[in-house]
Amino acid sequence: MKSIKKVAIIGVGFMGGSLARSLKEKFPHFSIWGYARSEKAYNRLKKLNILDKVDKDCRKVVEDADLVALALPVGILIDYLKKIAPFLKKGAVVFDLGSSKQLIEKAARKYLSKDVDFVGCHPLCGSEKKGAEFSSKGLYRGAICLITSSPSKESTKIVKSLWEKLGSRVLFGSSDFHDKVLSSVSHLMHLISFSITQLVPDKYLKFSPQSFRDLTRISGSPASVWTDIFLSNRKNILGDLSKFIKILNKFEKLLKRGDKRKIFKFIESANIKQKKLCVRV
Amino acid sequence: MKSIKKVAIIGVGFMGGSLARSLKEKFPHFSIWGYARSEKAYNRLKKLNILDKVDKDCRKVVEDADLVALALPVGILIDYLKKIAPFLKKGAVVFDLGSSKQLIEKAARKYLSKDVDFVGCHPLCGSEKKGAEFSSKGLYRGAICLITSSPSKESTKIVKSLWEKLGSRVLFGSSDFHDKVLSSVSHLMHLISFSITQLVPDKYLKFSPQSFRDLTRISGSPASVWTDIFLSNRKNILGDLSKFIKILNKFEKLLKRGDKRKIFKFIESANIKQKKLCVRV
Repeated sequence: MKSIKKVAIIGVGFMGGSLARSLKEKFPHFSIWGYARSEKAYNRLKKLNILDKVDKDCRKVVEDADLVALALPVGILIDYLKKIAPFLKKGAVVFDLGSSKQLIEKAARKYLSKDVDFVGCHPLCGSEKKGAEFSSKGLYRGAICLITSSPSKESTKIVKSLWEKLGSRVLFGSSDFHDKVLSSVSHLMHLISFSITQLVPDKYLKFSPQSFRDLTRISGSPASVWTDIFLSNRKNILGDLSKFIKILNKFEKLLKRGDKRKIFKFIESANIKQKKLCVRV
Repeated sequence: MKSIKKVAIIGVGFMGGSLARSLKEKFPHFSIWGYARSEKAYNRLKKLNILDKVDKDCRKVVEDADLVALALPVGILIDYLKKIAPFLKKGAVVFDLGSSKQLIEKAARKYLSKDVDFVGCHPLCGSEKKGAEFSSKGLYRGAICLITSSPSKESTKIVKSLWEKLGSRVLFGSSDFHDKVLSSVSHLMHLISFSITQLVPDKYLKFSPQSFRDLTRISGSPASVWTDIFLSNRKNILGDLSKFIKILNKFEKLLKRGDKRKIFKFIESANIKQKKLCVRV
């Protein structure tokens, strides 16, 4: 990591802000620059004081940077890949924290020059809260980080050891595999949580037990981020959603005919699966 | 509470065990008896030492008891209401902790004599864990307890102040209202959680983020308890399930046609609802 002097973060929200804080803690010699998209964001970031330098000109932020991190909602992330491409220095390593990977990788291949390496990353952590104000230097500790594209061995090694230094466990998988898995364990979960809140009348909320609070916590997740995720991983999510509705329909039939034995079996198989979850592989 | 000397608990599992522990802490003068359904349960409860007396004869447990608590899955609870009825003393107050209330109330009206008061209760807390081994004296602290039937003012007052002393916030509502609300904020949530685990392939589990763990925690809830709840509140749950599937179908359509604006609005309205949840009314 000695070769790295300047790090640029495009998108200093909850994820990007947490990246800034944790990098500063582990690599105090890094000069960490952050890009502010507006005057308001600029003032907020200056006040937070988690970056060595804030700038509203993304060219200034990325030029001469050894490492560039993109921590933005998928759609805007792709716009910025295109925007910053001409200003990146030769040999720069670009990585992202996007929640769906195939579209991002495609854009990286399209827009970035061959002198620049792109390492697709997705740290599997987050928050329903939005903004650098809520960011934390411990966010990436204990999280799994999936690396989905690794063009040069050297660049991948740098990005991998960076995540490991922040406390993440790095796993590798293709972007296709990533998008299938995440559709199932994350994207569909958010869709379900958003849908639950639409169902329950306001006057019932005061009776909500912990179970309800658990299932609806992530329904506070930012609309801008999640609209992009749903659209960018549409095919997988539609497939999982259709499977999920089929499972609900199956249960509906069992309950309609009061099939006690099969309802018990249905729950029991969920119990068994849940036990497997408690043991992280 | 000075008039109460003997308390009987029928069903000393997670909820009943927590009741025993918390009652003993707050009312050390109570003599707390617990019923063990089998030799195995008897030995386990003796070893746990959270009751003043354990007995395998439910007659001995309830006779002369001033207060009788039923903490069993709905179906068995109704069986025991019938079983203990002949042995209850005149003036005894019976209350329950059942998760659906209309069937239980109907059974109480049918089986209990007029000399006995039945107060239907449901403390809105619990665990995906099963058994008195996991019980805790702090379980009812901060929980809402819904009282759904209160025949005599005096009995209701006793049971209400008992829950309050254990730290619960008591609210009143009819059993019909209770079953509608709980179908929505609890029963459907469990159904959803059980269904999610059926969907996700085992090999994906190691990538599961916190959001997934939150949504599937309650899918470990005991099959015996939840089969009974689903069957005893079938009509409301089927209604809510059908509404939920409609919401998912609506989202499916939006995603199929890639309607960015409406997907954003869908999530945004969930965000607004979630904020209301954070402020407990």
